Amino acid sequence: MKQVVTFGEIMMRLSTPLNYRLTQSASLEVNYGGGDANVAAAVAGLGIPAAHVTCFPANELGQAAVQSFQRLGVDMQHTVYSGKRLGLYFLEVGASLRPSKVVYDRADSSFANLDPAAFDWDEILKDAQWLHWTGITPAISAATAQATADAIAAARRLGITVSADVNYRRNLWQYGQTAQEVMTDLVAGCDVVVCSENDANDLFGIQVAAGAENKFASMGEQLMARFPQIRQVISTRRKTQSASHERIKGMLFDGTYTETPYLDITPVVDRIGGGDAFMGGFIYGALTYATPAEALSFALAASALKHTIHGDVNLVTAAEVEHVMQGNTTGRLVR
Amino acid sequence: MKQVVTFGEIMMRLSTPLNYRLTQSASLEVNYGGGDANVAAAVAGLGIPAAHVTCFPANELGQAAVQSFQRLGVDMQHTVYSGKRLGLYFLEVGASLRPSKVVYDRADSSFANLDPAAFDWDEILKDAQWLHWTGITPAISAATAQATADAIAAARRLGITVSADVNYRRNLWQYGQTAQEVMTDLVAGCDVVVCSENDANDLFGIQVAAGAENKFASMGEQLMARFPQIRQVISTRRKTQSASHERIKGMLFDGTYTETPYLDITPVVDRIGGGDAFMGGFIYGALTYATPAEALSFALAASALKHTIHGDVNLVTAAEVEHVMQGNTTGRLVR
Amino acid sequence: MKQVVTFGEIMMRLSTPLNYRLTQSASLEVNYGGGDANVAAAVAGLGIPAAHVTCFPANELGQAAVQSFQRLGVDMQHTVYSGKRLGLYFLEVGASLRPSKVVYDRADSSFANLDPAAFDWDEILKDAQWLHWTGITPAISAATAQATADAIAAARRLGITVSADVNYRRNLWQYGQTAQEVMTDLVAGCDVVVCSENDANDLFGIQVAAGAENKFASMGEQLMARFPQIRQVISTRRKTQSASHERIKGMLFDGTYTETPYLDITPVVDRIGGGDAFMGGFIYGALTYATPAEALSFALAASALKHTIHGDVNLVTAAEVEHVMQGNTTGRLVR
Amino acid sequence: MKQVVTFGEIMMRLSTPLNYRLTQSASLEVNYGGGDANVAAAVAGLGIPAAHVTCFPANELGQAAVQSFQRLGVDMQHTVYSGKRLGLYFLEVGASLRPSKVVYDRADSSFANLDPAAFDWDEILKDAQWLHWTGITPAISAATAQATADAIAAARRLGITVSADVNYRRNLWQYGQTAQEVMTDLVAGCDVVVCSENDANDLFGIQVAAGAENKFASMGEQLMARFPQIRQVISTRRKTQSASHERIKGMLFDGTYTETPYLDITPVVDRIGGGDAFMGGFIYGALTYATPAEALSFALAASALKHTIHGDVNLVTAAEVEHVMQGNTTGRLVR
Amino acid sequence: MKQVVTFGEIMMRLSTPLNYRLTQSASLEVNYGGGDANVAAAVAGLGIPAAHVTCFPANELGQAAVQSFQRLGVDMQHTVYSGKRLGLYFLEVGASLRPSKVVYDRADSSFANLDPAAFDWDEILKDAQWLHWTGITPAISAATAQATADAIAAARRLGITVSADVNYRRNLWQYGQTAQEVMTDLVAGCDVVVCSENDANDLFGIQVAAGAENKFASMGEQLMARFPQIRQVISTRRKTQSASHERIKGMLFDGTYTETPYLDITPVVDRIGGGDAFMGGFIYGALTYATPAEALSFALAASALKHTIHGDVNLVTAAEVEHVMQGNTTGRLVR
Amino acid sequence: MKQVVTFGEIMMRLSTPLNYRLTQSASLEVNYGGGDANVAAAVAGLGIPAAHVTCFPANELGQAAVQSFQRLGVDMQHTVYSGKRLGLYFLEVGASLRPSKVVYDRADSSFANLDPAAFDWDEILKDAQWLHWTGITPAISAATAQATADAIAAARRLGITVSADVNYRRNLWQYGQTAQEVMTDLVAGCDVVVCSENDANDLFGIQVAAGAENKFASMGEQLMARFPQIRQVISTRRKTQSASHERIKGMLFDGTYTETPYLDITPVVDRIGGGDAFMGGFIYGALTYATPAEALSFALAASALKHTIHGDVNLVTAAEVEHVMQGNTTGRLVR
Repeated sequence: MKQVVTFGEIMMRLSTPLNYRLTQSASLEVNYGGGDANVAAAVAGLGIPAAHVTCFPANELGQAAVQSFQRLGVDMQHTVYSGKRLGLYFLEVGASLRPSKVVYDRADSSFANLDPAAFDWDEILKDAQWLHWTGITPAISAATAQATADAIAAARRLGITVSADVNYRRNLWQYGQTAQEVMTDLVAGCDVVVCSENDANDLFGIQVAAGAENKFASMGEQLMARFPQIRQVISTRRKTQSASHERIKGMLFDGTYTETPYLDITPVVDRIGGGDAFMGGFIYGALTYATPAEALSFALAASALKHTIHGDVNLVTAAEVEHVMQGNTTGRLVR
Repeated sequence: MKQVVTFGEIMMRLSTPLNYRLTQSASLEVNYGGGDANVAAAVAGLGIPAAHVTCFPANELGQAAVQSFQRLGVDMQHTVYSGKRLGLYFLEVGASLRPSKVVYDRADSSFANLDPAAFDWDEILKDAQWLHWTGITPAISAATAQATADAIAAARRLGITVSADVNYRRNLWQYGQTAQEVMTDLVAGCDVVVCSENDANDLFGIQVAAGAENKFASMGEQLMARFPQIRQVISTRRKTQSASHERIKGMLFDGTYTETPYLDITPVVDRIGGGDAFMGGFIYGALTYATPAEALSFALAASALKHTIHGDVNLVTAAEVEHVMQGNTTGRLVR
Repeated sequence: MKQVVTFGEIMMRLSTPLNYRLTQSASLEVNYGGGDANVAAAVAGLGIPAAHVTCFPANELGQAAVQSFQRLGVDMQHTVYSGKRLGLYFLEVGASLRPSKVVYDRADSSFANLDPAAFDWDEILKDAQWLHWTGITPAISAATAQATADAIAAARRLGITVSADVNYRRNLWQYGQTAQEVMTDLVAGCDVVVCSENDANDLFGIQVAAGAENKFASMGEQLMARFPQIRQVISTRRKTQSASHERIKGMLFDGTYTETPYLDITPVVDRIGGGDAFMGGFIYGALTYATPAEALSFALAASALKHTIHGDVNLVTAAEVEHVMQGNTTGRLVR
Repeated sequence: MKQVVTFGEIMMRLSTPLNYRLTQSASLEVNYGGGDANVAAAVAGLGIPAAHVTCFPANELGQAAVQSFQRLGVDMQHTVYSGKRLGLYFLEVGASLRPSKVVYDRADSSFANLDPAAFDWDEILKDAQWLHWTGITPAISAATAQATADAIAAARRLGITVSADVNYRRNLWQYGQTAQEVMTDLVAGCDVVVCSENDANDLFGIQVAAGAENKFASMGEQLMARFPQIRQVISTRRKTQSASHERIKGMLFDGTYTETPYLDITPVVDRIGGGDAFMGGFIYGALTYATPAEALSFALAASALKHTIHGDVNLVTAAEVEHVMQGNTTGRLVR
Repeated sequence: MKQVVTFGEIMMRLSTPLNYRLTQSASLEVNYGGGDANVAAAVAGLGIPAAHVTCFPANELGQAAVQSFQRLGVDMQHTVYSGKRLGLYFLEVGASLRPSKVVYDRADSSFANLDPAAFDWDEILKDAQWLHWTGITPAISAATAQATADAIAAARRLGITVSADVNYRRNLWQYGQTAQEVMTDLVAGCDVVVCSENDANDLFGIQVAAGAENKFASMGEQLMARFPQIRQVISTRRKTQSASHERIKGMLFDGTYTETPYLDITPVVDRIGGGDAFMGGFIYGALTYATPAEALSFALAASALKHTIHGDVNLVTAAEVEHVMQGNTTGRLVR
Repeated sequence: MKQVVTFGEIMMRLSTPLNYRLTQSASLEVNYGGGDANVAAAVAGLGIPAAHVTCFPANELGQAAVQSFQRLGVDMQHTVYSGKRLGLYFLEVGASLRPSKVVYDRADSSFANLDPAAFDWDEILKDAQWLHWTGITPAISAATAQATADAIAAARRLGITVSADVNYRRNLWQYGQTAQEVMTDLVAGCDVVVCSENDANDLFGIQVAAGAENKFASMGEQLMARFPQIRQVISTRRKTQSASHERIKGMLFDGTYTETPYLDITPVVDRIGGGDAFMGGFIYGALTYATPAEALSFALAASALKHTIHGDVNLVTAAEVEHVMQGNTTGRLVR
């Protein structure tokens, strides 16, 4: 089977154990993750070949990050080694009404300073069937935006499906170009996008009429009108009850609107990467099931399971996701 | 006071810490437990002398297992040392809608290969008032089934109460005899049995009429008719909400049907051994209280508390169980 | 800004990790705390200068306790070193319907044996605006009761606000004088008191009419009538659901009755110090906000957050408390 | 085989992990030990029945201490429950030229306040062949000294061997009687004593001539002259190189002087209990081997191994000790 | 560059933390390793492509073992999934004069029960330049011996270098054929062997004259005479000082005798896999350096470094090994 | 007593536990340290008031760093909050012949980007008796060099002793000015300097004649000739045996040459901060003892003890250092 290829930054995540606050933690747990790489790892875990493309410093931390994804079966052979530091972030794990907090320390990372010319996308994508990226990647620097554009262009040339999680983070875009102009060009090359009503408004000025019966469908319709390449618009919806309790559902518009019921997750073990697990699940589902509704249902079950797993990555098999997808949500002991 | 004696395999349990998955755990927590031994330990903790009879390899792991139960005051002097390996199982601890998983690695253990002649049951039971076994024990091998039969026969000769938790596990019975034939003979010698409607059907072909008003009572009635030695049939009923949230009640039929209200346990700290804690509590209750209803109520409170305690064994005092039995279920801080 | 000064014992707390029982814990977590010191630390964390006055043995444990509060910005320069041992307590952390348990080992501590003459209160309080103490302190020994009286007298001389958390613990009062006589004298010198209806009854014989519409207000009114110095009576009310789930609200009577809505905390990470966090929050609120209702609301939010934080002390900033106070109770991830 | 019985205090030991200092340890490791109880546990581990007699508070800590020795096969049925607290001590683990440090917190423990009349020594010793005590026990209080005297008297009546480790700790003797008078009476009833030249001098005024060729033999000779019951005087000698490196040998005088070569232990894992392991080994050796020299050699090997084991107690089998005793000191991997 | 391919069992290793004994360890550390796989991982870490061929059960433990080597860059695509259990072993970590101990629990593993026909060696070795196996593999079962023979035959057909670590473990050979007959056939197909004088004697009856000046050379000469395919005989020599202190040198005979100076390792962090690191280093060296002496020197430095690294596998880069090889053995801090 | 004031960067240190390699560490231990701040903390621990001046980001990590030194009694009130990130470094802890490794990630830190005008040195130093800085500080940026110059100038104005550890790290100096020119100006204002022969050569071109009898004295003499303000030149000398074994001595030239004997440290617990402990000890010694030789001896003992303590900071009391200084280097247990 051909590969799913993702592109983006992998950061070291330093998280507090056992709900400790950052100021009281004598040790920090180490994980490696990134919005795009998490999708590759999820897909690989579900049984579909996956590769991730990124840039690391040539030191022990870069090596550890590579090994972390290699372990999960992600092909890391396209890694470029340049620059001086691995981006990192600190995660303080909340509980109940105390939120989890992220302190980023990713400026000037190897990935931010990558050389777009170091990536030969036609070569990288020669065995690929799907390219996925997130809106974080072009937000980091002009160089990463250029590399994203190059990747999409190659994918289009090669007839590969392209998906994006637009994931708009206002405070990331600081290198001079606006998210609006950059993302408009990039999203134009995509077949599948994860996009919320807010992001559609902020990035593309798409407004949903106040009284719209189905806001997501309305947004999706406008988005597909604006970007004719897009075939499917998907998203999760969260009803966060507390830092320890989430309710999530999945939504899809592909001309028709589909949604899943809500799933309840309490307690939440690790919320980071829930959206990436959704995307990874959707890619698997799209390549496996006959209907978008099934793919969506699989994606939601995958995302729900991710909330019960430590680390950024969804460590689940397809059979485990299907078990939940079929309604087994009471976590009954398996012997 | 005379001893409660139990017979069965003790395994090493290797469980993942903090809800980690097996594939991501750099260390595993070690506990020792077994469905019968857990009952002995529970009974000893409640203040009644208890002994457990089993077979271990003569190595460090066998020694650690002995010490683990000796620590809780269980008389382990009847341990037979033979064979080559300690049975073990891996426990992946789930959360929310992700189930806990057990991976067994118990084939060809010292216990499975025990020599029935190595146990002098008249000697072992000479200070006993109660013998307890579970359906796991005769499921393991012809040898363990024979030893169970020997123990029951000796108990009957000595006028000792016999109880069994029938606990039918289909995939264990692989040595040639069927559960149906073996268990029928063994259960015939019992005074008290833990048995669900499903197990009664699978093992003894007892069917409850579809429209029966009280299915448990109907089953109990038929079971007592079939096995005249049985005086009491008991069971817990679980309404599992998630891997982190259980609701349980207790049921008893002794001619009359009695049940307890449901108790809610959230979060569940460790679900393994909940049934054994129920049985241990019931033995204590039967030997202590005037009425079966009180014994049942005590048993349920004991089982509920077990769900809040790490490891297979119910580490509680009689006073603590009585506190819950009296309706103190809000866990208010004790100074 | 002038200091908030507190006086009382700091104990070493040895608590079981991960809901283990005391009998099964191979290690214990070390924290230092005390009802009064926790208030000082909370206040310092909120940005108001704070000092704590206490007595320690001149050994490594006393040094560790000093450092523990120094770390949080509490001025510990008034510490007196005398006596032979640090008081300590063991905390077994419960879950669900199993209560947490405290085993005290505080008899004959350095603090219990302090010399009241070793504290020069006029000097200690010369830069203070507020003195806080709890009913634990005078309960320990005649010496600590005398020192409390001295501190209050000095505060009154210097025109400093005095607050007390009456916190009646029957089994502490064992040195010959009754809580009733000692506390009556001490509370007479206070401006603000934390007091429940039960404590008011037990300590001061204040009875609320069975049919009183608002029992707290009725108690507060009588208390203020008895002790004319008191301007505000406050308290939290707990509806404990389980050891893992609390619901709390705040109440205030200052002539008028005010209360907050209930806040839900599930799971509870660490319940110890919840009341101290409430008091610390109220002091901050009283010094910061225009209205008592705002101070109460801040105090309740502070107390709720404390339940999500390991250790005795409320490690939160004023901004974090305000965030909850403004209704953000769903713990949504902060990036 | 008849029991070896020991009498003395068991304390909770709270030690710093990984060479941390007490002021920087966020958790402490829990062990239970006492100079006499450690001997019982060592003897039980070597395969000889052993019982320990002591007094605990009737709380979770007393229960944990009992379980800790029960686990190792020590008969704890004679435990008396009275008094209010478990004695404890803090151990800061040193390294290289930084010494380990002990901070005691044992005053007013249950054991110190025991009632001598609570121990029926004729009953306790009815199945015993050996009674062992240390000089710590009578140093604690008049009550514990009385109980020691009672135990020795009963042992003499019953014809049981009595041994003592005189272990003089100057700062313990604070209840009014001097070590000199108390120990003289108690040692008079002993057959075997562990005693160094310094302790013989301090306790019994026995002086070794400056130019004595063999100081230990000279001391032993005088000691046996003074106390005719004594048959053997033994001791270890330490050449401490650093907190991480010990050299020890064993010495024995029974009319003739015998000594072992030095054994090197580097790194030292846990030095506490090294002397108790020596005594336990000597009792085993005396009951097993034909010659005192073999018993001494076994005792030294046992003590050396103890230095490599965490906790107060020597967790070794007789075969393991014999392996070292036979000169296998290079720790070659055993498969 | 072409691959180095290894074949053999990978076991789960459960080791005690911090020098704890097995009977006192509440948790065990998890690693995966095997004598052959460790070589593949070492080689991959040094920068040469490597693959390992093995057989696992299709469960979470097999998956974890695969991931563990995948992480280090070992190609695991040839893994066959069959059978029921993962072999495992328990490692008790010794210190000073207390040996480390291994308790094996590997009987009846998936690997032992593999089907030789499941491995298509011509396909597996099609991109290989070197095949390595150890004497453990054919010792396990007739099936694994057959698969080893098949692999060697294919390698010879394809002109690939074959190496073996004869590693004779008497107690493994239990399936009916003798080590002598099986190993003679297998070693006949090898170019490079690791063999000690003892193993040469035990397996092939090669005796070194008592007065031989150079015993290793004498053995090597005879071995090469017996097996004409062999070009190089190598080995490490250990002067074990204690479980915490090793001295090792390397020896080589290829017609001429070469040896390295001894390297001192104290403390030893983890001794397991030291020989595999030597072999992995030698393969790297043989493929990289001009002279066997350099390869040997690199191999010894690699082995020495392994002793300082937790786990079975040598996690070092070629530059790090070269640094030691060049005489930098004082471990001076690298900034 | 007046304060010792230090100035420089504090970094978060993320170190591997238990000699793990960076690529295999699932968690990292958190400490905070810096060459100058470590001196302040050492001095405060020895009982002399100390303050540290630095610059942090206004986030949780800056807060944690402040608290870490506040805990040790260091006055942190002069901290300036500006910039965006806390400098950090990763420490891989070596063993035996495997070196420890530091991976720096400190570029563009808050401290590097500090505004020299934000520090009012006359105010900061108004209660000081001693100013200390290291050559790391002016190496970071033009801004930090300027602030160092300002501090020295103020100290000279106020008649305060100034000391420096020249500590030349070639790869730090990257902002355009050379170490030679910057350091020459700064060292000119110092009374006491830590300087090795190599650093004197590299920074100031001071060459010691090849045949010089005492190279350190020769260097010291030339250095004092060049910088007339300098009264004392000191240094440690390391004979590193392995990553786990150091030998160090102290040297001093103040017109006369003095040195200490070597001290052996094995095992080394944590080597980082050994030089800072030496400097902190020397400041204490200079302020306490009559002779430089005593100060040097105290400094060396302090440095040796630091090697046995986790973290960057020397957590010792003056009595503990004196104990070693008096020749007690065998780490004999202290009760």
